[in-house]
Amino acid sequence: MRSSSTTGREELQASVAENEISPSNHCHSRGKLFVVGIGPGSFDDLTPRAKNAIMNAQVVVGYKTYLKLITELIGDKEAFGTGMMQEVDRCQAAVDLAAGGKMVAVVSSGDPGIYGMAGLVLELAMKLDDSCRPEVEVIAGISAVGASAAVLGAPLMHDFAVISLSDLLTPWPLIEKRAEMAAQGDFVIALYNPRSTKRVQQIEIVREILLKYRPASTPVGIVRQASRNGQKTAISDLEHFTQQEIDMFSMVIIGNSQTYVEAGRMITPRGYKL
Amino acid sequence: MRSSSTTGREELQASVAENEISPSNHCHSRGKLFVVGIGPGSFDDLTPRAKNAIMNAQVVVGYKTYLKLITELIGDKEAFGTGMMQEVDRCQAAVDLAAGGKMVAVVSSGDPGIYGMAGLVLELAMKLDDSCRPEVEVIAGISAVGASAAVLGAPLMHDFAVISLSDLLTPWPLIEKRAEMAAQGDFVIALYNPRSTKRVQQIEIVREILLKYRPASTPVGIVRQASRNGQKTAISDLEHFTQQEIDMFSMVIIGNSQTYVEAGRMITPRGYKL
Repeated sequence: MRSSSTTGREELQASVAENEISPSNHCHSRGKLFVVGIGPGSFDDLTPRAKNAIMNAQVVVGYKTYLKLITELIGDKEAFGTGMMQEVDRCQAAVDLAAGGKMVAVVSSGDPGIYGMAGLVLELAMKLDDSCRPEVEVIAGISAVGASAAVLGAPLMHDFAVISLSDLLTPWPLIEKRAEMAAQGDFVIALYNPRSTKRVQQIEIVREILLKYRPASTPVGIVRQASRNGQKTAISDLEHFTQQEIDMFSMVIIGNSQTYVEAGRMITPRGYKL
Repeated sequence: MRSSSTTGREELQASVAENEISPSNHCHSRGKLFVVGIGPGSFDDLTPRAKNAIMNAQVVVGYKTYLKLITELIGDKEAFGTGMMQEVDRCQAAVDLAAGGKMVAVVSSGDPGIYGMAGLVLELAMKLDDSCRPEVEVIAGISAVGASAAVLGAPLMHDFAVISLSDLLTPWPLIEKRAEMAAQGDFVIALYNPRSTKRVQQIEIVREILLKYRPASTPVGIVRQASRNGQKTAISDLEHFTQQEIDMFSMVIIGNSQTYVEAGRMITPRGYKL
């Protein structure tokens, strides 16, 4: 990792400046941008396609914490790491570098296509002229919801809904409406960003919505740091699950009306006659 | 692959007989069962964790078509392949072999935790006594919905619902209700098993339900054989998408009210102010 992590917009812009597109040399050497899912973080969960994209890139861009997980793949490439909440700066830098001719990998934990960086990178790339827009390839990774389900057993064997409880980018009434609809439809429900230090009431509201439609005994699985060091699992029920340790590193999976727990595993039957 | 594919229940039972648990030798050498997601099928999408589980197994069990994809990993191990629709036989054989002391890998395409073999294997394992039940470990894979989303661009950047339109194991009225709820909640909607040769009307009904809540111009992406040889992509809209080639190898992803298409990519904005 050469000029490694930066922390603010100024430093990033400085790094990017040398790759700036000059009007006289307009996109002559257009690069390519890979948005790469590294999965939960262990090399055991990293696909060869993702690994190769990182190894073939000239520049690797990502949230500092995730770049640390793949230090040995980055080697002595250029790397731009930014802090949390700096997604726009980070993805803009990546798009600019690729428009300037570089092969760039933006790394994202889990699957970049599920609440990840794929959308932001594409949205920013679309702001460029057709002639300057780098090719963008999204490489799927093992998602947080998939890794968590595997740890719990088989909760996602039937139709499911995935909802983020973070209301930073989504109005709360819409999230509440989605929880209501998913509850009525008897979907298994996976909650991303279920609770943070500052945001503690939302999960209680969702619990109350669910209790209108499902028994208090409905199984709820909670996985913290799925498929990572320090992984923790708890199986609770709709009545009590919010008393468990739940934070931004946790995934909460609420069973449907058929889900049961046996021998510590959470199972939603697919419907086979056995 | 030693005694390779069998096609019926009789042959499987014959293969399993030699591993039968005799009451006098009750589970002395309990085995382990891995339910392994191989992803779309290419080695590029196979995680090292999944690969190792297959290589370390003594017996590999799976749908014949998927076993063919991993022939070189199976080598000269025992392998039991069965035809489509024989999931119960296949998983029962795997559970019996593991209960008899073998290390067994059940391979499943995509993610075995999403409409895959994880549930069936666990359900069958739970029928055994605690003392005989093999340990079951589920290994997540790149899911069909994740692989398809990556090909299309970034359609799953916001809350989404996953629904299978197959009514073999689920009563149709429940599927219809779920489509209605997901439509009302403005979820992005991914449809597994969208249409088969015999089952052609269901997707038309879902289209009509969606048209009650979303404009006819809502983007719809279709990916056939995502991340496999012969991959095909089409981007259409809610009005016209059922005119496209759609079959059991296809994934259909219907956008929410914010989803748009630009330069051939399907993007659901996450909500950043750009």
